Amino acid sequence: MALQSGPVMSLDEVNAFLVRDFPQIAPGRDFIVEAVGPLSARMLLAASEKHLRPGGTISGPSMFALADVALYVAILAQIGPVALAVTTNLNINFLRRPAPGDLIAECRLLKLGKRLAVGEVSLFSPGDDDPVAHATGTYSIPPV
Amino acid sequence: MALQSGPVMSLDEVNAFLVRDFPQIAPGRDFIVEAVGPLSARMLLAASEKHLRPGGTISGPSMFALADVALYVAILAQIGPVALAVTTNLNINFLRRPAPGDLIAECRLLKLGKRLAVGEVSLFSPGDDDPVAHATGTYSIPPV
Amino acid sequence: MALQSGPVMSLDEVNAFLVRDFPQIAPGRDFIVEAVGPLSARMLLAASEKHLRPGGTISGPSMFALADVALYVAILAQIGPVALAVTTNLNINFLRRPAPGDLIAECRLLKLGKRLAVGEVSLFSPGDDDPVAHATGTYSIPPV
Amino acid sequence: MALQSGPVMSLDEVNAFLVRDFPQIAPGRDFIVEAVGPLSARMLLAASEKHLRPGGTISGPSMFALADVALYVAILAQIGPVALAVTTNLNINFLRRPAPGDLIAECRLLKLGKRLAVGEVSLFSPGDDDPVAHATGTYSIPPV
Repeated sequence: MALQSGPVMSLDEVNAFLVRDFPQIAPGRDFIVEAVGPLSARMLLAASEKHLRPGGTISGPSMFALADVALYVAILAQIGPVALAVTTNLNINFLRRPAPGDLIAECRLLKLGKRLAVGEVSLFSPGDDDPVAHATGTYSIPPV
Repeated sequence: MALQSGPVMSLDEVNAFLVRDFPQIAPGRDFIVEAVGPLSARMLLAASEKHLRPGGTISGPSMFALADVALYVAILAQIGPVALAVTTNLNINFLRRPAPGDLIAECRLLKLGKRLAVGEVSLFSPGDDDPVAHATGTYSIPPV
Repeated sequence: MALQSGPVMSLDEVNAFLVRDFPQIAPGRDFIVEAVGPLSARMLLAASEKHLRPGGTISGPSMFALADVALYVAILAQIGPVALAVTTNLNINFLRRPAPGDLIAECRLLKLGKRLAVGEVSLFSPGDDDPVAHATGTYSIPPV
Repeated sequence: MALQSGPVMSLDEVNAFLVRDFPQIAPGRDFIVEAVGPLSARMLLAASEKHLRPGGTISGPSMFALADVALYVAILAQIGPVALAVTTNLNINFLRRPAPGDLIAECRLLKLGKRLAVGEVSLFSPGDDDPVAHATGTYSIPPV
């Protein structure tokens, strides 16, 4: 597990990279990287009209997107912007209805191999300890 | 499997129900129900700016949304608009990069129980036999 | 989440229940419940011939069984031996080759509802912090 | 998808390979390859004491094992015994209680890439059209 060495990109570097190269996941800054750490990342999805379903809660596809991008950010911060990793599998369990408003994703990498990275992500309504959803996903990392 | 009896809602009834009650999944008619059958449904996601990633292909979250709604439609057509089913689990494998443009979802229910419905969905670029993604999902059906 | 109240069965009660009612998962005591806590359980799979693959490591199906029974035990300890819960979904990621010998499962319930319980399980070789596998599973809890 | 070209190993060759190199999955011939085809395989799990749970139905871990080995066989038949593929992910939905006795697995590969193979497997009680379980799995194929 790369000896749990720290991330090679700082929070500012990750955010700058996302804004420049992934405008689609940062349009108006809906997806905000709050922290990166060793094999981990925390993100916020700022609730805006296009992510909501009736009732004002974040929709399933937006929860999927938040989990997916949190995994991507955790990998990116750890290995640097050298490779174009792609999601190969994502499994998500929806656990309870979120409160209206923003969502937070806590991601932890379970494996960071040369070819595959696997991580888990818990999604929370801010201030609530019970997760609203939990995802596990795999990214394929292309050869350098 | 409930005697494989046919769906209780017609294609027109399903589309009318979606447009009226789920404006968020049919804004401008991006998600179009093309066919419903016994324990099955076929949907089209019409490519529009908000579903695309750079390169013009449908994004992962939009593929998730397409698979999820195809499952919902297959259940809805079979049991009618009587219950508010919710997704509890969705597992998706991304298999190959789609061609730029629309995507088609073919959904087949594997189980339609009183409390849980499980189905699988294959996503295709129109005219191509190799799926670009494959999902399996579970809906919880509330008590009547 | 039931206010995180403690389990209703003690470790001894859970083990006695398993030995009496589930001889198939406790033949010769391969699967040992080491601890139960609030929404959690820890189990040990004692390596024996029938669980091994060439090389002396625990096989994939036995890792599946360990994750599955750890989830069952965490639910059982929390709600008591009142209902016959059944697995409806289990998703497992194999992360790295385990060391030869025993395996430990750490299970944590993410949701314990009236109809569905969802939890995650990490599998470890004793003394190693990097998980060899990670599973997420759902049990259906029948009506009382 | 390798142009849907046929398998490179015959049924007899696959069975001989399994018996010789994987005694643990063919002890007394519980797992029998019934057919291999282009990107597909059909297997039988012959019910024997060790695979049963009370009631005489095949246990969950044995269903997992059957799905896993069916995927392995479909890959093996297609690419030959050249590489040591390993399971990286398996997601299984248990749909209904099987009838007591044997189980059949029908496997279909969804993707056979250079590094990853993905397939789906439906498990049936012989003579029954409704699947008792459905799995989706990924194998990692090592570099040649």
